[in-house]
Amino acid sequence: MWNMKQLEYGALARRANQIKKELRQGVRRPYKEVIDVFQGDLHRAGMKPLTFVRQVLAACVYPPLINSSNLPLDVRQRAQEELGRCVGGSVGSYSAAPGIPEIIHSISEFIKRRDGGIPSHPENIYISPGSQWSISNILNVLVNREASPRTGVLIPVPCHNKTVLSITQLGAVAVPYYLSEEQGWALQVEELQRAHESAKGVCNPVALYVINPGNPAGYVQSQKSVLEVIRFAWEKRLFLLVDELYQDCVYGENCEFVSYKRALSEMGPPFSGTVELASFHSVSKGFSGECGLRAGYVELVNLDPAVMKHIHTLFSKDACSPVLGQIALNLMTDPPKPGDPSYLLYKQEIEQIRTVLVHSVKKVHEVVNSLPGFSCPPIEGGLFAFPRLHLTPKAIQKAKELGLQPDTFYCTRLLEEGGVFTGPGWEYGQKEGTYHIRYNTSRALFKVHH
Amino acid sequence: MWNMKQLEYGALARRANQIKKELRQGVRRPYKEVIDVFQGDLHRAGMKPLTFVRQVLAACVYPPLINSSNLPLDVRQRAQEELGRCVGGSVGSYSAAPGIPEIIHSISEFIKRRDGGIPSHPENIYISPGSQWSISNILNVLVNREASPRTGVLIPVPCHNKTVLSITQLGAVAVPYYLSEEQGWALQVEELQRAHESAKGVCNPVALYVINPGNPAGYVQSQKSVLEVIRFAWEKRLFLLVDELYQDCVYGENCEFVSYKRALSEMGPPFSGTVELASFHSVSKGFSGECGLRAGYVELVNLDPAVMKHIHTLFSKDACSPVLGQIALNLMTDPPKPGDPSYLLYKQEIEQIRTVLVHSVKKVHEVVNSLPGFSCPPIEGGLFAFPRLHLTPKAIQKAKELGLQPDTFYCTRLLEEGGVFTGPGWEYGQKEGTYHIRYNTSRALFKVHH
Repeated sequence: MWNMKQLEYGALARRANQIKKELRQGVRRPYKEVIDVFQGDLHRAGMKPLTFVRQVLAACVYPPLINSSNLPLDVRQRAQEELGRCVGGSVGSYSAAPGIPEIIHSISEFIKRRDGGIPSHPENIYISPGSQWSISNILNVLVNREASPRTGVLIPVPCHNKTVLSITQLGAVAVPYYLSEEQGWALQVEELQRAHESAKGVCNPVALYVINPGNPAGYVQSQKSVLEVIRFAWEKRLFLLVDELYQDCVYGENCEFVSYKRALSEMGPPFSGTVELASFHSVSKGFSGECGLRAGYVELVNLDPAVMKHIHTLFSKDACSPVLGQIALNLMTDPPKPGDPSYLLYKQEIEQIRTVLVHSVKKVHEVVNSLPGFSCPPIEGGLFAFPRLHLTPKAIQKAKELGLQPDTFYCTRLLEEGGVFTGPGWEYGQKEGTYHIRYNTSRALFKVHH
Repeated sequence: MWNMKQLEYGALARRANQIKKELRQGVRRPYKEVIDVFQGDLHRAGMKPLTFVRQVLAACVYPPLINSSNLPLDVRQRAQEELGRCVGGSVGSYSAAPGIPEIIHSISEFIKRRDGGIPSHPENIYISPGSQWSISNILNVLVNREASPRTGVLIPVPCHNKTVLSITQLGAVAVPYYLSEEQGWALQVEELQRAHESAKGVCNPVALYVINPGNPAGYVQSQKSVLEVIRFAWEKRLFLLVDELYQDCVYGENCEFVSYKRALSEMGPPFSGTVELASFHSVSKGFSGECGLRAGYVELVNLDPAVMKHIHTLFSKDACSPVLGQIALNLMTDPPKPGDPSYLLYKQEIEQIRTVLVHSVKKVHEVVNSLPGFSCPPIEGGLFAFPRLHLTPKAIQKAKELGLQPDTFYCTRLLEEGGVFTGPGWEYGQKEGTYHIRYNTSRALFKVHH
């Protein structure tokens, strides 16, 4: 199972910050700035925020702007509407703990449209300060700290380390299932079977965590794959935790995002009424890229009323999610419509972002595969590349002598000599004897486009 | 000890929401709107946000406003400065997990000024999405779930129920110490002794939670009282969790806010170098009243480096606090200075808020004490009144017949018949056989002043 010690990461980030500081103080290096492609943060990567979103938020923050003729009429009307939903007409008041009711309703309408009319119920939706927060809190409900054997959660390898950390911190066991790099990081149900078997005698698996589209591996699950995973979860009575943050970031030809909620509903009985599902989305990873506002939502399906009550209590304990983030979530799920004054610019900005992301991904794939010692399957979705590093035995030996993981050794040299800050593969998990690096694909091209 | 079942509160809030909905739908009642004085939310109570704060935030959200001649020069410069501290120049990027370094530095300078020059170290300060979040996470570090006997935390009665909940949810025991209503809700060290003794055989007390100025009881601790509490914590080796959210809300004559940090430092050895202290503050409860932005900070003093490391990990697990909340925290701790274009208006707004709060508190105290069946000691600080209800045996009997706590019965009638939404005393804890209600003192007068 997963080794907690492997998660003592962050040394590279500290070093990158130190180098940035030295550069500001005038220390000379072969480069003038550190290129930070570590995080999946579009604004950091140079993407401009969506004008409509920022105009509405600014008018909500400072309501005299609602009377400003410098802002489009629909922006001003929208700000007025959003403020009407805030207690006391201020984004500075607390909202209801699960979120502003009208915004939750608008999210449910968004999900319904996305899923071809399958109903979504507002009482099953909770807004939170980011999706990681929701994931941790739902895990908190699923994990029984006193259980023996311990509670297990199946998670992909590679996987974002914060997810692993939130499992192990609760005293649960992270049971790894390996994505098939050879098959473009496909999620194979036989591997889920193997992982589930491997847990016997170690822990009691109660949940399966899936991220689709992937991070750090940029796969997009086919409908067939989604159906197989749901059937597997049903057979093994596993709660499905599905991270669908990158649902807008799909680039592969013949790739389409299929939501677990839709697939589950369309399967019909006995699946549709029994498989417990939590699906996560946020304003951070779509085209709004508003990580700093801290807002996401979770939709819960088929949960036992007693569990729902427990979740309600947990989601109420920190007052409410940031109100401006909630409004951004509303703008993302209910954007300008054709005919609205802001529609054309909004559409144009979204198209431009999509174009940049698609170009970036293609370019990264081409360049990486043209380099000796690198290989990378096509990137179908998400914001990251996770190419394999074919290190020479000499490089591996050298890393060992320095007491470093071989890919950390590579990333350290990339940072020290080239000023590029990436993440070493072992922080995300990888098959023994393979090495990878992770980086945000979009940075270089946003810099060129703006 | 505290009974978890008592915390199944929220029925009144649900009823208040239902009545609000019915009123909107045209149902006729003796009143046209529900007067919500349940929460300590100044914007909800009708307070206007501070102009400077909202102008800077709006320009940070929508940077073209930085060029607008409609905004004062210092607002535009300040917005530029704040954006310069955001990665990628956007409030939509993640910040460092503990907070934006320059803002943390500015908070440490604020603390130093407040405390007469006693140093505050940026590495001991963490920004969080509200102070309740920090309190829960620090409790998480202090409470050993596997310990036998269980971990205990001393908490005041009355006390905000979210604090009690965050203790009991961790499997710890909330050990009540009673504030002396007869002495204006004074915190008496003999009562701390009694509470600590009472824990013997039940739990192992490791921490003492204090809120000063108080909520729901509006006391302000004297310097003498603060020193006594610190000395008690030192004797019993208790970690001090000090909620200082209402430090700006001090109204009583001869009352002054004395920070625990300052008192501890001034005591000198052996106290100053050994008593572990966490002090909480936020943008929600000061004169900015920005609850919806979700930002607070904690300053940690004398913590063991191993514990600090653990806290660092916990505070890093949810990415970062909302960036706009962080900026609001910076504007609160580093406001306009004399000579700045925004200074006069800022000062005038702050003075007006203070005047309204002081008037409200006096008025509430007068009115409450003039009503038969009510009594309330002078309100020295905070945002709440917590008067005692002297209910007739008949009323108590009637409540029991309905299966309600007597003060819930009173609050329910106040809501149903008068449209006023308050909190029943038992939700905060009270001496057996006494009954109280809690409400925000400021609502009525803000409505009059604007």
